[in-house]
Amino acid sequence: MVDLTELMENEVFMAFTSYTTIILSKMMLMSTATAFYRLTRKVFANPEDCAGFGKGENAKKYLRTDDRVERVRRAHLNDLENIVPFLGIGLLYSLSGPDLSTAILHFRLFVGARIYHTIAYLTPLPQPNRALAFFVGYGVTFSMAYRLLKSRLYL
Amino acid sequence: MVDLTELMENEVFMAFTSYTTIILSKMMLMSTATAFYRLTRKVFANPEDCAGFGKGENAKKYLRTDDRVERVRRAHLNDLENIVPFLGIGLLYSLSGPDLSTAILHFRLFVGARIYHTIAYLTPLPQPNRALAFFVGYGVTFSMAYRLLKSRLYL
Amino acid sequence: MVDLTELMENEVFMAFTSYTTIILSKMMLMSTATAFYRLTRKVFANPEDCAGFGKGENAKKYLRTDDRVERVRRAHLNDLENIVPFLGIGLLYSLSGPDLSTAILHFRLFVGARIYHTIAYLTPLPQPNRALAFFVGYGVTFSMAYRLLKSRLYL
Repeated sequence: MVDLTELMENEVFMAFTSYTTIILSKMMLMSTATAFYRLTRKVFANPEDCAGFGKGENAKKYLRTDDRVERVRRAHLNDLENIVPFLGIGLLYSLSGPDLSTAILHFRLFVGARIYHTIAYLTPLPQPNRALAFFVGYGVTFSMAYRLLKSRLYL
Repeated sequence: MVDLTELMENEVFMAFTSYTTIILSKMMLMSTATAFYRLTRKVFANPEDCAGFGKGENAKKYLRTDDRVERVRRAHLNDLENIVPFLGIGLLYSLSGPDLSTAILHFRLFVGARIYHTIAYLTPLPQPNRALAFFVGYGVTFSMAYRLLKSRLYL
Repeated sequence: MVDLTELMENEVFMAFTSYTTIILSKMMLMSTATAFYRLTRKVFANPEDCAGFGKGENAKKYLRTDDRVERVRRAHLNDLENIVPFLGIGLLYSLSGPDLSTAILHFRLFVGARIYHTIAYLTPLPQPNRALAFFVGYGVTFSMAYRLLKSRLYL
């Protein structure tokens, strides 16, 4: 069996691992938030989910949409749309040998911006709080993409 | 050119590769399931998709939503929301040198739970079948995230 | 600190890096397209987003859906559903030591097909333009998955 400790002793890769694990875990908590609002507000998308609240027509009234639930779902989808590119581009960037402090700055800004984005979306805070958080995360990912395409282009 | 066979001779990484390929392929089949229901039930989201079924107003009646199609789409989105964190956290976990049998247990539980989740969603099976499948996959991913943050934290 | 240049000197991995960075950047531009249509058409999903256009009831009229915005969002979601499997399966495929020209053919076809898919979706072009673009990308990903499962199965 091969020793992989080399990769995991690389500091940039270790930092990427920590920040990615944190932001993916945060994203997973959005599922819990959706489930929480669905249960406390009795708002469901599937008939089988509200079967415990009554029979037949009585249960069907819980098949509805709710502003609060839809808001969490939009925040979750926005996370997916932005964390997937960070995951892919960030991984390749980490393997491309960037400067440690530059890399950590990118990871910290992204993770901070996405956590602030969630707070701004769920509170909700007035704009442009959410828009600024979005653009910081967006800019960080493009900055890493730019470095990759500039130094490693191979088509 | 560099020989990458080292990484692919690591048994944990080989197992991660196999299970990830299986569960991502399963997720892709959800697109086919959506297309199948759209075509057999004539339910479309875009005017150009139902142009073959008639002209003008006659075609527009197929621009509608359908319970069955929406169910498959919800199952697909739930897959995305859960398989993306597994992909990222699982990859980093596989590279962090876990015990082989522990790692394989994690991968098997996740893949089994997500396949059962799809069956429970599409049949549909009564709750808590789908909820339990969801929480097994969720717990497995958090268990890998916990190990990464406990042993490799570098912020 | 460990030298990772080995991995980044592998030509297949360099090609995967370039094509993945390009297609993930393209996917991120879908967010900008959504924002563009939301702002120019004044169509919003959140009350705080249209607070600048008026107070109270006057602002609420902008909380609506719009065909054009929904079309971009469907294209974005379709990207996510297809680029995530490519990201995972393509990464593992790149590490499994494929033939360089075969690998590059896979990456080029996928990236070309997804860019054409976006053009076909947003123009919109008549079917089967979009369907064909979808199936080329889909087939490429399954072809890489097949190779991985055939040569590296370890369950």
